[in-house]
Amino acid sequence: MAKFAYDSTKNADLFYAIKVPVLDPFFFIDLGQAKYVFLDHRELGFFQEKNKNPNLQAVLLKPSGSFEDFAWQLLEQYGLGQGELEVPFNFPLQLADFLRSKGIELSVQESLYPERAIKTTEEVQAIRQSVQKTEKAFALIERILRESTIQENSILYNEEVLTSEFLKSEAEKLLLKEDMISEEGIIISCGQHAAIPHHPGEGGLKPHQTIVCDLFPRSRTTGYFADITRTFVKGAPPEEIQKMYEAVLLAQQEGIKAVALGKKASDIHKVCIDVLLQAGYHVGDKGFVHNTGHGLGLEVHENPRLGEKSEETLEPGNVVTIEPGLYYPERGIGIRIEDDILVTAQGAENLVSYPKGWVIP
Amino acid sequence: MAKFAYDSTKNADLFYAIKVPVLDPFFFIDLGQAKYVFLDHRELGFFQEKNKNPNLQAVLLKPSGSFEDFAWQLLEQYGLGQGELEVPFNFPLQLADFLRSKGIELSVQESLYPERAIKTTEEVQAIRQSVQKTEKAFALIERILRESTIQENSILYNEEVLTSEFLKSEAEKLLLKEDMISEEGIIISCGQHAAIPHHPGEGGLKPHQTIVCDLFPRSRTTGYFADITRTFVKGAPPEEIQKMYEAVLLAQQEGIKAVALGKKASDIHKVCIDVLLQAGYHVGDKGFVHNTGHGLGLEVHENPRLGEKSEETLEPGNVVTIEPGLYYPERGIGIRIEDDILVTAQGAENLVSYPKGWVIP
Repeated sequence: MAKFAYDSTKNADLFYAIKVPVLDPFFFIDLGQAKYVFLDHRELGFFQEKNKNPNLQAVLLKPSGSFEDFAWQLLEQYGLGQGELEVPFNFPLQLADFLRSKGIELSVQESLYPERAIKTTEEVQAIRQSVQKTEKAFALIERILRESTIQENSILYNEEVLTSEFLKSEAEKLLLKEDMISEEGIIISCGQHAAIPHHPGEGGLKPHQTIVCDLFPRSRTTGYFADITRTFVKGAPPEEIQKMYEAVLLAQQEGIKAVALGKKASDIHKVCIDVLLQAGYHVGDKGFVHNTGHGLGLEVHENPRLGEKSEETLEPGNVVTIEPGLYYPERGIGIRIEDDILVTAQGAENLVSYPKGWVIP
Repeated sequence: MAKFAYDSTKNADLFYAIKVPVLDPFFFIDLGQAKYVFLDHRELGFFQEKNKNPNLQAVLLKPSGSFEDFAWQLLEQYGLGQGELEVPFNFPLQLADFLRSKGIELSVQESLYPERAIKTTEEVQAIRQSVQKTEKAFALIERILRESTIQENSILYNEEVLTSEFLKSEAEKLLLKEDMISEEGIIISCGQHAAIPHHPGEGGLKPHQTIVCDLFPRSRTTGYFADITRTFVKGAPPEEIQKMYEAVLLAQQEGIKAVALGKKASDIHKVCIDVLLQAGYHVGDKGFVHNTGHGLGLEVHENPRLGEKSEETLEPGNVVTIEPGLYYPERGIGIRIEDDILVTAQGAENLVSYPKGWVIP
């Protein structure tokens, strides 16, 4: 069935289809083999220079009439003036109403290219590269923590109080040199902040408390994300944190094993839950409050999801994060460990080789 | 009328409404005064910490049943199980179908908050700040060009060939220090590349040719964009380029004057067109191939648009770019000059004070 969309390549499906960034919304038609993008003079030349796909053609946009009328002209021109069209879940609603009034049936897709969940060798290579570049940022973070000293309730680096902001800025600069952009930010959060999974972190980092470092930059060259989390403690973690870290690490290891065994997505989540419950921690409203992981590719969070309600079974070519965590705001503790796992015919490969030594004296 | 949405704050309307970044999609209800966001454990704590709006409440998400059923439960709970709802233009189509099947009427809005086009004093201040920070990056670019030397067909800086990539990276680093992220990239394009308006530029910069520098970073603190373009020539521009630059500059000045005179958006565009046509250049398929400008705020391109088809009249509080340009790919020339203009009750204020000296010996 033909696909029809109106969006920019910030929509990962459109970037997947055309492989050249176009930052303003455009019309897109996919007839199966032949694909068409309709661009104006601002974009056309660049697109034609970069496009390597002989089945994808850029057509100069000559808009006339209303937005809806123009879309209709395009469809008729490409023989799509009747029948059914696949459109993305967030297809413009007014245009949808208009097309339906013309007798077009719209088949709404959660993803226009669900095959995105199965990565090709080239895509795996791109993710691998993003992961390796992101590991360099972890090495930098760890080096700075190692070279820092503890003074009472602060961590000092080059005689200044080491902050979340400084570490994020250093990591971001290194990543930019590697052509990786942290467009959704960076999490380097300590103590109370670490206990809120998506808190980006701010202010001075504290010794003997957990420091959650979650980096999820995207390659500007390939478009593919990495997504890695390590939790560090500068100084000596109290026993409470030690035990908790060990439980999260075990949950993560068992989660990865479950991927390798070909378990269903929801069962992988269950494996992590069970480890944490058995170790005496909570799941749901406190403790382990999020899913075990998610697909990774042109989106930082994409299908398949690894949660209670997931219905998928993982397949070779899936790349998923495994990232159990524990969060206790009242105790000021958050811990998360996250790797990116490629599902293979034989089992699973952890694309992240960055070590998990976490206590930095 | 109540508003209902399901999106992340990458949707500028939602960021405008709630002022705290939430990067995964969430349900949002606006009852007029009272607003509600429905967040899970990953986001809730951070949101509550940052939210300063007493009329905006975060509710812990307890999803049950299907996506559609859950949305319906929410609506009923907030007394919205009948009547009409305002939804954004890209509201999930399947959910729209479901709500309509329940008898809800959906009023599709191009923008949920069209008042975003009229900036408050606070918003103008945020844009002003973004502009000032972006001007620092222009000063850096100009300084590097000034400190460079010409050697035959290359520009050398610190004994290396000066490239588009290097300048972009230096500008980006400076901007990041100012908490400005160039998430949609940076344009520093020369010659042939400059002749394609949205070509980001690559490779060695050439003397005696136009170098288009278009920076449009967003403040990570406030969310507001700046959008400024300057065109430089390192060396001696041939007469052809000189004349063209003067024409674009005149068009831009006349465009800004037209804003100050309170002209209609389409008439402002017409003013720029007329200057360029009168100077002997082309409009449409070559020469001046794009609109004169666009609104600027939480989106880099937002309403009002300043083009042929615009129906708006500018109003005090609008912030718009005025950015005429000329592009001749066959001659390898592109020129664009862009400032950000605040429409005031008295006329217009150019928020950009960066000079337009463009020939760098």
